[in-house]
Amino acid sequence: MTTTEALSALTALEAELRAYGHALGCLNYDGETVAPRNSAPARGETMAFLSAIVHGRVTDPKTGEIIDTLLAEGDALPLKDRRRVSLLKKERDDMTLVPADEFAAYQQLMAEAMQVWHDAKLASDFAAYAPYLDKIIAYNRRFAARKDAGKPAYDVLLDGYEEGLSHETLDPFFALLRRELTPVILAVAKAPQPDTAFLEQAYPIHLQKRFTERVMQIMGIDRDDCAVGETEHPFTEGFNKHDVRITTHYHEDSVLSNLYSVVHEGGHALYELGVGDDLQGTMLSGGSSMSIHESQSRFYENLIGRSRPFCEVLLPELKSLFPQQMAGVDVEKLYRAANLSQPSLIRTEADELTYSIHVMIRYELEKAMIGGDLETRDIPGEWNRMYREYLGVDVPDDRRGCLQDSHWSFGAIGYFPSYALGSAYGVQMLQQMEKDVDVWGAVCGGSLKPITAWLGEKIHRYGQLLTPAQLVESACGGPFDPTRYVNYLKKKYGELYSL
Amino acid sequence: MTTTEALSALTALEAELRAYGHALGCLNYDGETVAPRNSAPARGETMAFLSAIVHGRVTDPKTGEIIDTLLAEGDALPLKDRRRVSLLKKERDDMTLVPADEFAAYQQLMAEAMQVWHDAKLASDFAAYAPYLDKIIAYNRRFAARKDAGKPAYDVLLDGYEEGLSHETLDPFFALLRRELTPVILAVAKAPQPDTAFLEQAYPIHLQKRFTERVMQIMGIDRDDCAVGETEHPFTEGFNKHDVRITTHYHEDSVLSNLYSVVHEGGHALYELGVGDDLQGTMLSGGSSMSIHESQSRFYENLIGRSRPFCEVLLPELKSLFPQQMAGVDVEKLYRAANLSQPSLIRTEADELTYSIHVMIRYELEKAMIGGDLETRDIPGEWNRMYREYLGVDVPDDRRGCLQDSHWSFGAIGYFPSYALGSAYGVQMLQQMEKDVDVWGAVCGGSLKPITAWLGEKIHRYGQLLTPAQLVESACGGPFDPTRYVNYLKKKYGELYSL
Repeated sequence: MTTTEALSALTALEAELRAYGHALGCLNYDGETVAPRNSAPARGETMAFLSAIVHGRVTDPKTGEIIDTLLAEGDALPLKDRRRVSLLKKERDDMTLVPADEFAAYQQLMAEAMQVWHDAKLASDFAAYAPYLDKIIAYNRRFAARKDAGKPAYDVLLDGYEEGLSHETLDPFFALLRRELTPVILAVAKAPQPDTAFLEQAYPIHLQKRFTERVMQIMGIDRDDCAVGETEHPFTEGFNKHDVRITTHYHEDSVLSNLYSVVHEGGHALYELGVGDDLQGTMLSGGSSMSIHESQSRFYENLIGRSRPFCEVLLPELKSLFPQQMAGVDVEKLYRAANLSQPSLIRTEADELTYSIHVMIRYELEKAMIGGDLETRDIPGEWNRMYREYLGVDVPDDRRGCLQDSHWSFGAIGYFPSYALGSAYGVQMLQQMEKDVDVWGAVCGGSLKPITAWLGEKIHRYGQLLTPAQLVESACGGPFDPTRYVNYLKKKYGELYSL
Repeated sequence: MTTTEALSALTALEAELRAYGHALGCLNYDGETVAPRNSAPARGETMAFLSAIVHGRVTDPKTGEIIDTLLAEGDALPLKDRRRVSLLKKERDDMTLVPADEFAAYQQLMAEAMQVWHDAKLASDFAAYAPYLDKIIAYNRRFAARKDAGKPAYDVLLDGYEEGLSHETLDPFFALLRRELTPVILAVAKAPQPDTAFLEQAYPIHLQKRFTERVMQIMGIDRDDCAVGETEHPFTEGFNKHDVRITTHYHEDSVLSNLYSVVHEGGHALYELGVGDDLQGTMLSGGSSMSIHESQSRFYENLIGRSRPFCEVLLPELKSLFPQQMAGVDVEKLYRAANLSQPSLIRTEADELTYSIHVMIRYELEKAMIGGDLETRDIPGEWNRMYREYLGVDVPDDRRGCLQDSHWSFGAIGYFPSYALGSAYGVQMLQQMEKDVDVWGAVCGGSLKPITAWLGEKIHRYGQLLTPAQLVESACGGPFDPTRYVNYLKKKYGELYSL
């Protein structure tokens, strides 16, 4: 095989994998959003079948030949092609560890687990879900052992979400957050809380839907490229830069829940929508890593979305849609309500200050689960114990406890730390951005375009061309420094609560 | 290849085709319902790619070997297996006529045509759509010529939707409808019209959605097996008996439009939901033909849905959701408004009496289009001329003229006659059903279960096991007899309008 042949075979393979990925993504999105409840088993079969074909194509000896031929070129190959090969090799190495039938069975297991989780969550029935979770944990432990038996299994999984990430970074990171933030959380809990009575009213869902449209407009998301669905657990799915989907969840009694879901998922969407045209159709067309992805979503949600200037922009929109509910609310009141901090049960609705503690609890739990130190049946008890210990809250049921997140059901163990890492990256990016862009002037003007343009330039356009570490280095103007995140939170909440 | 080997290869092939069909159906449904506008080109590529794989599998010599081996068994093979083979052979024969690349390009063309049609309809811009329609017509003419150059091309297409159907049945059928119904239509137009002022009010869409749920409940459709989406043009998609999707279109100023879309598509859904368990997963698991499918949808929509007893059941539901709009409306008023007959522009919203004339116009147009007697650019003019001649209405724009239906965009030329045929079959089925079941007692009692059970027994459970002709014969208690349809309409409208 010549280099030219290998490159054109790579392009053809990418087209195949793109088609299967698109079909699988569509089946998954459909299943999460609109499919009827009883559709899960047949969808699981179809997804298992298609995944097995992907597995077959990636592990095919011919794919190995493409990789070997192109790797032999070394630096003679342009960066883009080198990166395509290295990502394909990573995928091939991972898939080669799992026989085709085991791989397909795992896809089906996950499809079914999503449905079971959904029902179990509503019924607060961990026992119904446990057998599925147990198998997902077992698969991940097995996979990690095969991939690198010399490394702690959880480190192997972490590396899958963020190249090079391990407990060596995360243990001190979370220790820092625990040490520095716990006193602030305790002080805030004792301080007088803002008046949030205006939020405790009915905000009709059909009006909240119109609010969603306005928020997306302010964010500069073209609805012709991005759909909005509804799910139990909001998420983003991107097929290409002209087909991104975000989802949200409407609660009549919680207008901010939908708002911040849309802003968070909108941040993910802007990343996918901003990947360079030259990368479309290649393996490099998605976001770089989960942490970089979460840095974008949490950037919009918190650094921008929960800022005073953004509340200024939102206020007239809210007043026009909900005149009665918002009567007498001014910017300061909205800003303080949007930043209410208190130890709580639900991660996705947690304030910025306590958020990372929710993540830290999941990190510790997953490390124990995958390390073999925690049986599946003991997860609820351990979850509740840690919520008591670190956040001082009693978990009343598993729906609001260990069944709240969907991640484990789609096999994502080792993903949660991305949220905290991404939040920390975001603070560094903002500080860097402020040197180049009039961030708050843009927000006050009601358009996030200059902000998105900066992120587009530094991060979005690269897709997966650069590694997470390269992106952090370039967008943050220096290496990862979590003290800046901690200091940002201490300052913001110190001011909010006059500590 | 032994018979046993061939049977197990057939089962394996069915599983493959089912998975690809499921993925393609899901991509299509997603595209029609929730995908963002700019997603069409990439979806077209993916669908073309997957269709090409299906084409490859069906035209594979090994598939020919399976068919030949099993055909050689003749009647020694059980009916179910014989039918599986014969349907596979039909699909293979058809696909073999079209080279793989032409087939894939056609799939992509259709995916793009759907999007272009959608926009062109909204803008009433036939010129933008014409190049796509032109290619779709050319493909269908080419296909028909390859399949049977000795037959009129349109007959070849008709046969694809209903085995054995040709102009020899349809010319006299539509001539009968024209001859017998035109005088009634004219008489009705001169008669005093019912009072429909109560319909010309705003019926908020979020309340109409609740009404949809009640209607589906009355129809006995389990929402865990059947989802409801929203599209420009309502349709039904069935993946298997636990995953059926119907769509509707909400118009704030037309509560009956949504109602009868839901009842119509609900009829399609009940068919798919009622296919026998023993046929699931095989090629026989869908509905038998388009006419049989439409016989079910039009049965529920008109024979049941527009009956006086059904209006009795709906009235309290409507009054409870729309107390102001429905003030002073009694059953007779609702019944007469639901059966308002007047020559109109839109097929899907036409009354029972004029409906078949809309279909007849499409039949004549398609015959000319495919027969080579009508250029694509002349379609709007010819459409408008026929609406003037046969229904006495002036078509103000193509949005309400030849761009109103989606069918041509998904390649369905020869499909429209199914609606009229199905409507006629339905009347025969109802007359037969009334011998066995207290149809109107059941409707008055607010449950369609006994009706659906009868149709389930006679039609639904057979899926594609029996031919359309066999089903008509068995469910109608005799051969097709369109005079019964004509007499039913004359009687119903004679009474309604005191002719």
